[in-house]
Amino acid sequence: MANITKKVSWSSRADESAAAGEGTPLLNGSEQPQHSRQLSGGGSLFQIGRLSTVDLEEEITSDEDSLRGRPKEIPHNEKLLSLKYESLDYDNIENQLFLEEERRMSYMGFRCLEISRWVVCGLIGFLTGLIACFIDIVVEQLAGIKYQVVKENIEKFTEAGGLSISLILWAVLNSTFVMMGAIIVAFFEPIAAGSGIPQIKCYLNGVKIPRVVRLKTLVVKVCGVICSVVGGLAVGKEGPMIHSGAVVAAGVSQGRSTSLKRDFKIFEYFRRDTEKRDFVSAGAAAGVSAAFGAPVGGVLFSLEEGASFWNQMLTWRIFFASMISTFTLNFFLSIYHANPGDLSNPGLINFGRFESDSVAYNLYEIPLFIAMGAIGGLLGALFNVLNYWLTIFRIRYVHRPCLQVMEAMLVAAVTATVSFAMIYFSNDCQPLGPEHTEEYPLQLFCADGEYNSMATAFFNTPERSVRSLFHNQPGTYNPLTLGLFTLTYFFLACWTYGLAVSAGVFIPSLLIGAAWGRLCGILLASITSNSSTSAQDSTAIWADPGKYALIGAAAQLGGIVRMTLSLTVIMVEATGNVTYGLPIMLVLMTAKIVGDYFEEGLYDIHIKLQSVPFLHWEAPATSHWLTAREVMSSPVTCLNRVEKVGTIVDVLSNTSTNHNGFPVVVQVSGSDESGKLCGLILRSQLIVLLKHKVFVELARSRLTRRKLQLKDFRDAYPRFPPIQSIHVSQDERECMMDLTEFMNPTPYTVPQETSLPRVFKLFRALGLRHLVVVDDENRVVGLVTRKDLARYHLGKHGLEELQLAQT
Amino acid sequence: MANITKKVSWSSRADESAAAGEGTPLLNGSEQPQHSRQLSGGGSLFQIGRLSTVDLEEEITSDEDSLRGRPKEIPHNEKLLSLKYESLDYDNIENQLFLEEERRMSYMGFRCLEISRWVVCGLIGFLTGLIACFIDIVVEQLAGIKYQVVKENIEKFTEAGGLSISLILWAVLNSTFVMMGAIIVAFFEPIAAGSGIPQIKCYLNGVKIPRVVRLKTLVVKVCGVICSVVGGLAVGKEGPMIHSGAVVAAGVSQGRSTSLKRDFKIFEYFRRDTEKRDFVSAGAAAGVSAAFGAPVGGVLFSLEEGASFWNQMLTWRIFFASMISTFTLNFFLSIYHANPGDLSNPGLINFGRFESDSVAYNLYEIPLFIAMGAIGGLLGALFNVLNYWLTIFRIRYVHRPCLQVMEAMLVAAVTATVSFAMIYFSNDCQPLGPEHTEEYPLQLFCADGEYNSMATAFFNTPERSVRSLFHNQPGTYNPLTLGLFTLTYFFLACWTYGLAVSAGVFIPSLLIGAAWGRLCGILLASITSNSSTSAQDSTAIWADPGKYALIGAAAQLGGIVRMTLSLTVIMVEATGNVTYGLPIMLVLMTAKIVGDYFEEGLYDIHIKLQSVPFLHWEAPATSHWLTAREVMSSPVTCLNRVEKVGTIVDVLSNTSTNHNGFPVVVQVSGSDESGKLCGLILRSQLIVLLKHKVFVELARSRLTRRKLQLKDFRDAYPRFPPIQSIHVSQDERECMMDLTEFMNPTPYTVPQETSLPRVFKLFRALGLRHLVVVDDENRVVGLVTRKDLARYHLGKHGLEELQLAQT
Repeated sequence: MANITKKVSWSSRADESAAAGEGTPLLNGSEQPQHSRQLSGGGSLFQIGRLSTVDLEEEITSDEDSLRGRPKEIPHNEKLLSLKYESLDYDNIENQLFLEEERRMSYMGFRCLEISRWVVCGLIGFLTGLIACFIDIVVEQLAGIKYQVVKENIEKFTEAGGLSISLILWAVLNSTFVMMGAIIVAFFEPIAAGSGIPQIKCYLNGVKIPRVVRLKTLVVKVCGVICSVVGGLAVGKEGPMIHSGAVVAAGVSQGRSTSLKRDFKIFEYFRRDTEKRDFVSAGAAAGVSAAFGAPVGGVLFSLEEGASFWNQMLTWRIFFASMISTFTLNFFLSIYHANPGDLSNPGLINFGRFESDSVAYNLYEIPLFIAMGAIGGLLGALFNVLNYWLTIFRIRYVHRPCLQVMEAMLVAAVTATVSFAMIYFSNDCQPLGPEHTEEYPLQLFCADGEYNSMATAFFNTPERSVRSLFHNQPGTYNPLTLGLFTLTYFFLACWTYGLAVSAGVFIPSLLIGAAWGRLCGILLASITSNSSTSAQDSTAIWADPGKYALIGAAAQLGGIVRMTLSLTVIMVEATGNVTYGLPIMLVLMTAKIVGDYFEEGLYDIHIKLQSVPFLHWEAPATSHWLTAREVMSSPVTCLNRVEKVGTIVDVLSNTSTNHNGFPVVVQVSGSDESGKLCGLILRSQLIVLLKHKVFVELARSRLTRRKLQLKDFRDAYPRFPPIQSIHVSQDERECMMDLTEFMNPTPYTVPQETSLPRVFKLFRALGLRHLVVVDDENRVVGLVTRKDLARYHLGKHGLEELQLAQT
Repeated sequence: MANITKKVSWSSRADESAAAGEGTPLLNGSEQPQHSRQLSGGGSLFQIGRLSTVDLEEEITSDEDSLRGRPKEIPHNEKLLSLKYESLDYDNIENQLFLEEERRMSYMGFRCLEISRWVVCGLIGFLTGLIACFIDIVVEQLAGIKYQVVKENIEKFTEAGGLSISLILWAVLNSTFVMMGAIIVAFFEPIAAGSGIPQIKCYLNGVKIPRVVRLKTLVVKVCGVICSVVGGLAVGKEGPMIHSGAVVAAGVSQGRSTSLKRDFKIFEYFRRDTEKRDFVSAGAAAGVSAAFGAPVGGVLFSLEEGASFWNQMLTWRIFFASMISTFTLNFFLSIYHANPGDLSNPGLINFGRFESDSVAYNLYEIPLFIAMGAIGGLLGALFNVLNYWLTIFRIRYVHRPCLQVMEAMLVAAVTATVSFAMIYFSNDCQPLGPEHTEEYPLQLFCADGEYNSMATAFFNTPERSVRSLFHNQPGTYNPLTLGLFTLTYFFLACWTYGLAVSAGVFIPSLLIGAAWGRLCGILLASITSNSSTSAQDSTAIWADPGKYALIGAAAQLGGIVRMTLSLTVIMVEATGNVTYGLPIMLVLMTAKIVGDYFEEGLYDIHIKLQSVPFLHWEAPATSHWLTAREVMSSPVTCLNRVEKVGTIVDVLSNTSTNHNGFPVVVQVSGSDESGKLCGLILRSQLIVLLKHKVFVELARSRLTRRKLQLKDFRDAYPRFPPIQSIHVSQDERECMMDLTEFMNPTPYTVPQETSLPRVFKLFRALGLRHLVVVDDENRVVGLVTRKDLARYHLGKHGLEELQLAQT
């Protein structure tokens, strides 16, 4: 070990620390072994805010003391930054092996690689489309059966009395479905809970979220979302598509499945973080595309969330995957609907066709739209604040899987009960017109030839309800119905998000927004029709509440998720009409500005509650006074170019540091200063080297049995075994290991005086994992990792520094 | 001067060399003084391929000899890389002054900056929209008058005979307009020629094209495009909008106009390359948006062409500018059309509304679309090859402004004559239906109540012709008319592009494609209606030739310009219908693949002919065997931290090097090795320092008169005076200058062993101008600039290296 290695204090843990290890020898190869189910129970996004019960090492600094003294439930753990998450390495490790391979490869070889990238993207799109299609058909079938059964039951008991039996039937049906969905999520794969968008955001940002792109996650996600939508929760099936697409991409691009223990021996070149992340971007885009029929929106989503470096060919491939995905969905749904070739169902949610004539807007409506955007921002912030408190509550009290399942069932039963009550007490009867399109019209206490209007909103899948709100004739809903619906659905949706079920928040948001938007439209129409000044044509424009429903939906969704460009494009593509671009953009912008004043976006809240070291686009504005010297972790554990095996094993086994990257140095002869930087090597590479026993025995100068190849590293990727599973004998400990061939000889470096924004820019633009800080003699003085940069953020009172903790 | 400075050989000129100087003392402050009009005459894109008549210095290496021996007209100067172009500096110069300012700034200060960025983007969008509106209205009015006059004249002479007089009238009118357009371009601002898209591509790529974003350029561009469109050339007014938007952005964001000598003292913070380039991206996007009514397409265009680093907020601002731009245009046009509030004219070109029913496509049509894409690729490649030869011809023989004007007039006259002949000999008479929408129906020799169909294509502005081809009823054109039209217009458009007039190639491409696309549609319909197997409904689908016109237009445009994602989105937005996303994408992809097999895209050809050091997205695939050592320029002229004024003046005045960036080093005491890198300073900074006489007189220890501030640098930006205009007395030459405060103390560095792709990635991702190569002692060994990287490109026979020359 190099002589600059010192005792590592708590503060230096800011270095990339693997989750593996933590003192207990672990022999299985799973990615995050300590992340076992007994501990985890967060039905919320990830496993939220639980201090892991690791044995803290002997030397505890004062910082640590205070941390230890904290109660097990941390009230404000969004002020912490978890050390649990590793980073992805978007930077290629250009070691000798890699360069040799690249240099051997002919131009044709690169062409073939490029073609296989396209093939992979096509496959990703196709499979994502198929999954969307599967979800859509199963949900439609099951929901159809459920609503038919309940409807018949209600009709039977409406005359005879005893509607309470119908209520019970409905509640039990819902709870059963939700129970199934919650059980698989809570017990088998907690990471599949929620929409998965925050997780994918983190992944694309460069944070490795354990188990997020596994096959098992996909299966649980798909089954879970079917159960929760059929179970009548206030959820959508769109958000989870993004996660599903990402999993498909991660699987297809690697040409193997570790879960199924199948290796197809293809696409081996793509077995590294750089390539995989590119494909996951494509998968996420394909997911958006399939969910909303919005291929361009999908591309923009991926870029907005993930890709810091825009590459033309990559973007074009992502777009290809998106297009194939929406096309596949469209094509198979057209066959399913017995109308092959009619490509009018580009996405899971279909806003219906907004014809240009009916949606014309006028200049003087724009202030109204902006006002609606502000309302959306306010309501969105309220939603987020409520959900934040709820999540904190869940972290503290609802963390055991069985509790989570029970909570989900409770929500399902309450949803059914509230819906039933609303329908029961509503007396908004509407005539069953000839053009009427309701799937399950409930007559209930209405006269013959009429149906209960409240039921069209509640007694239906949310997607259909949204479409009805957008397109039904003026007068289909009365204002009271819409108001009550907004109110109840708002709280139901808020309660539902964060349950241990797979479900998205897009559709409930749209539904809430469409309801109050339509309400606004109706009120405006009644105001203007009363005022005598309004001309004939203006009344005609006011008269269409569907337009206001659309604006309200955009405002509410924008207020909750705070996405900007991509959401505008998604909404435009989903409506199939570009006329609404400007109003939707203005509305989303207003909603974002107003909402951000009070509270962050929903996804950001959940990411923060998870203490994920998420890197934003730029360093905080007022961070110019910080330099690499203040930011970096030091001292750094360095290795020599030719290092003793025993030292390496000790360094890797040191659970108090758990570093993932080690600068390699050469000692300057005749100087007792620290050595000069000559490379960087990763924990995972060292593990592979140890496993293959690439040792040089000095005494007998026996060389390693065979030359290690890139293939060996690729085969081990991404689940490198922990150091504890590798047995190194006492003899072997005395051997030496030559790292020259395997280290990255040209790591990026910065001088100590570099300002934080400059470090940040370099780090973010290149997707780095480790950035070595050197002095003017090229000696290693520190290491900057994701956590060091993510620590600084702009709070209410200027720049704040987050605590680092092993949560 | 540091002791590692040596005589700089020709090969080391790869360093950033300013165009200023070149041996002759120049006292005016213009950007590129030697670029005077007497020398320049390139009616083509820039001033193409003319060896500047510089006095080559005494020591001429063998390379130089061969260069000198070349004829004045270089047959293959796309194998050269010009040293004439400077780079933009996308990387902030984080010197002490800058950091102090940033640190002084409060959080509110940053907020205000952010708000002013939004205001600037709004203004950019608004002004761009206004300009588009102005162009549209003036063109419509003037073209209306012209066509009315000619139509009346033709009608007068049709019966009486003597149509040759009409022909002459038409030709003279056209030539007059074109002459005016050509004169202002050729004599006043040659950079305004063409569409401006290649220039903006280069600018966004980071190459400083002289005079490209000046007010004068904008005025000439706008007037020029009006003249050439009214003059009846086969050109469009859309491409130039992108350039116009960029100029507007560069002007507005700087808060002053050097041409008008007005400084509004606002937006001073934005007076540097980084900020300016961001705004220019927004301007280009606003231009696309106004031209095609495609705000999302505009954003994607900017990103595809320029921004390597995707920043969420920046993208959102670009989108805002785009939206405002299309909205402004739409709003003012609606007032002009006496229908205020009817926002149905989002762009200069309006494809007309493609209603969903009429444009449904079926799965089995997709192979047909792909085949059309291949045709488009072939025709596009042919177009590009012809235009390439033509451009070479123009470089050799048509480089004097008066010749250029005459050529433009000739083309105008020929265009009129050919059009007239086509109309005259055509006997495709169509009945004037009740729903008929032709603006200027020419009866000519047709029966009463009929009009000449060929005339609808030729006797009209190209925009209207495109719309007619898309939307006219089946049977409006007969196949012969379309075939002849395609043929003649193809050659006319090819001849026209590259003339010394402001004009775009988008619309002619669309028109050619729409014509042969419609022809395909008609032929397919006749084939399927003859075959007995075709069902009724399939005939109905085949029957719409407008759909095939759209696909053909996309194919032809894609085949010529080879844009991908942005073009798909632009087409989708211009048609106002997302249904066609997949077919258009497939068509564009096929056209690109087929076209790339034969020849590059039109813009790339012109950029290459200009020898611009353009950086692509990635390093050439097979360049892994190159390292920074081979790529860099060395030896490097370094300066000491405290340097003698005389040395600095000498270095800057050295016309044989013309370096733009100088590493600053500190000498290690007691060692005669070269010094260690401690910073980087730019020529422009040194010039400002010299101008303000920031000297330290050692003897009397008199300090500088006042402390230099960032403002001084900003005031001088971007037109820094040449070194020759600064008088330094002999006394002053003996003074010292302390560079510590002004140099960038943390330039990015790479070790010598770094592979070219890695260097390239760093350089491109951060938009660098200089990258210092250091050894393991942190001593400067070389400098990598844009030219060093752009030199390597993938040719037919693997990696090729371009020659560097002072063209």
